[in-house]
Amino acid sequence: MSQSSIRPVVAFMTDFGLGDGDVGVMKGVALGITPEAQIVDITHDVAPQNVSSGAWILAASYRYFPKGTVFVCVVDPGVGSTRRPIAVRAGDWIFVGPDNGLFDRVLAEQTFHEAVTLANPAYRLQQVSSTFHGRDIFAPAGAHLAGGVALAELGERLELADLVHIDPSLAARQGERIEAEVLHIDNFGNIITNIPLSLVPDLFSSHAIQLGFPALNQAVAERRRFFADVPGGDGQEARPFIYGDSSGYVGIAIRNGNAARTLHVSYGEKIIGTINA
Amino acid sequence: MSQSSIRPVVAFMTDFGLGDGDVGVMKGVALGITPEAQIVDITHDVAPQNVSSGAWILAASYRYFPKGTVFVCVVDPGVGSTRRPIAVRAGDWIFVGPDNGLFDRVLAEQTFHEAVTLANPAYRLQQVSSTFHGRDIFAPAGAHLAGGVALAELGERLELADLVHIDPSLAARQGERIEAEVLHIDNFGNIITNIPLSLVPDLFSSHAIQLGFPALNQAVAERRRFFADVPGGDGQEARPFIYGDSSGYVGIAIRNGNAARTLHVSYGEKIIGTINA
Amino acid sequence: MSQSSIRPVVAFMTDFGLGDGDVGVMKGVALGITPEAQIVDITHDVAPQNVSSGAWILAASYRYFPKGTVFVCVVDPGVGSTRRPIAVRAGDWIFVGPDNGLFDRVLAEQTFHEAVTLANPAYRLQQVSSTFHGRDIFAPAGAHLAGGVALAELGERLELADLVHIDPSLAARQGERIEAEVLHIDNFGNIITNIPLSLVPDLFSSHAIQLGFPALNQAVAERRRFFADVPGGDGQEARPFIYGDSSGYVGIAIRNGNAARTLHVSYGEKIIGTINA
Repeated sequence: MSQSSIRPVVAFMTDFGLGDGDVGVMKGVALGITPEAQIVDITHDVAPQNVSSGAWILAASYRYFPKGTVFVCVVDPGVGSTRRPIAVRAGDWIFVGPDNGLFDRVLAEQTFHEAVTLANPAYRLQQVSSTFHGRDIFAPAGAHLAGGVALAELGERLELADLVHIDPSLAARQGERIEAEVLHIDNFGNIITNIPLSLVPDLFSSHAIQLGFPALNQAVAERRRFFADVPGGDGQEARPFIYGDSSGYVGIAIRNGNAARTLHVSYGEKIIGTINA
Repeated sequence: MSQSSIRPVVAFMTDFGLGDGDVGVMKGVALGITPEAQIVDITHDVAPQNVSSGAWILAASYRYFPKGTVFVCVVDPGVGSTRRPIAVRAGDWIFVGPDNGLFDRVLAEQTFHEAVTLANPAYRLQQVSSTFHGRDIFAPAGAHLAGGVALAELGERLELADLVHIDPSLAARQGERIEAEVLHIDNFGNIITNIPLSLVPDLFSSHAIQLGFPALNQAVAERRRFFADVPGGDGQEARPFIYGDSSGYVGIAIRNGNAARTLHVSYGEKIIGTINA
Repeated sequence: MSQSSIRPVVAFMTDFGLGDGDVGVMKGVALGITPEAQIVDITHDVAPQNVSSGAWILAASYRYFPKGTVFVCVVDPGVGSTRRPIAVRAGDWIFVGPDNGLFDRVLAEQTFHEAVTLANPAYRLQQVSSTFHGRDIFAPAGAHLAGGVALAELGERLELADLVHIDPSLAARQGERIEAEVLHIDNFGNIITNIPLSLVPDLFSSHAIQLGFPALNQAVAERRRFFADVPGGDGQEARPFIYGDSSGYVGIAIRNGNAARTLHVSYGEKIIGTINA
């Protein structure tokens, strides 16, 4: 394949929503810099200014993108303040966005190679606003990186320890007890917990397992391997069940129903899990 | 145009919504396999797990895409069960998705050429989850097909009669009477019925026509050729009217208003039409 | 770069929403005509049939797209009536859509070069419906233009004065008093006014400024340069403040909050501004 037919992927993730034109503007900026870029959206519906939720969605997604993909991620309550704009190379990918922990879950599982602040004005728009760095700093940086500019060109070098880190909010297991919380509620109302499947290798063993929501006085104990797996027949359809979500975390769902709405569960809800051998 | 500049189109349609990153992940997988693919969305807001509604949206859309387009369509309540993942070549296009009737409306109007189960592990991701075949089976299959792999390579051959078929829910006309229902409500609140325009060649003739919603005790009799067609002047603006929708079906709209909300009509609402010569 | 690797950008903006497949259909049509086009969305969530809001979003976006970008814009309450479909070349871009004022804000700030009615049937789909010109007229025209067809080929020449113009609804300032209104409410609930920043060069001067909503008996006087700028500490977080929006207009926001919801402000709300030297 000739050089000119290589099309670097730039993947965008923001909390901007799709109603304002801002996402389109970032893409316009990127294509003006690197016309051959292939642009893809992860999502633009991260819960507004919820860095932790954005970090989780990114971590569930990035590994499925081609090596070399540049991720431009903007969940940025600190825009305009002293928080640094950064680019990070980790694993086989590059991540561009605010230095606020958005890349923490990725960095927890990929080798860190290098990071810089996006300080070089040659790789920003000429005018930088104080409220839309997605357009003025992050999209230009991502496009230049996708077009082949070396990371080190974009600004001053940062060490991994220099970056801002957030509490990853991973579940903790002590023997039979798991302390956890709700990480995400998906489009079907499935409840994604912060319990990695690796923490419960016994999820589908003969042990009894229960996930309780103490504040709601509710608990779920039934398990299914997939949504249409109905061992007891259709009479049990409306009961919530535990399953292994494709993101790599334990989930709770109701077949043909909305588990979050039925159980009145929302983001951050506390969970106590118990596993009885 | 050189070989390397041909960009096969992969069009995605799901009920995943855009909030979870799942749609982005499918595209990342596809671009990792066929970097030159041109990716387009039909919609990701099919009513959750509503195969019939997905089948209708697909049927209203596919013929406007270039010949050779590969459609990756995932409305899949049976994911993880024994329902087959399939690819179907019909007319000038290829359709990839679950074998649950999603392609029935296309197959009713296009020549069936060939179909296979997506059983060949060489064209899946290495790990196949039980809840996200869009990522693990359908996107890879679509990308390989767009990249030039022959359909027969992907798995065992299926005949048209082997495929699962759903009730197409088309309206039936007997002389002056039509039994119908609501197929879709669009972004403007326009009500799309399951009455193909071909069933009422007399829609804009001098015959009187009426579409009634028996359960709602409502009926619509006025007709207009387009939304801004206001024969009686602006005083009649708020009245619902019958029109020929661009999807090829009879619709009901209110100019500058929301017909579905005004008439309290939702998906599946029964309609009795009468045409008086 | 060889001719075959130039990828003209076609940017779409509509009020169609993303739930119906209509946006995908327009892209399918465009790619069938100009396969090498790079397709980008500005937004498809313009308030339904709100030409004025669409004109504002377009004006805040277009200048960030590459020179030569073709914008296909459809906010079109008059579809099917005698309103003309047009293409306009202004500044470094081409704009395709209904002749209803949607391009007025662009034309107010860019040099007008030429315009045509989209009358030539060679550049439409063979069948033209009366309700979906986005598919049948605008997407084909945009794709042909992106593919290199000269504007003059598409139809009869129009002068700037021939085009339909709308009230641009820009704020007026008389000394210390500004009469304005709400132009847009963004995904974060930030309130964008129709006061261009150029009208208030004294926005961040020592002068006192106040933006009042007479009908709501509310006023905002605090100013901040960016969202995380909290001069008085976190105790003041819930107070709305005035800021300079990245679109180039004065905005009102609440940090980590939704200003429009808190202040009960919606589109078109009247504003009286006062600036005291």
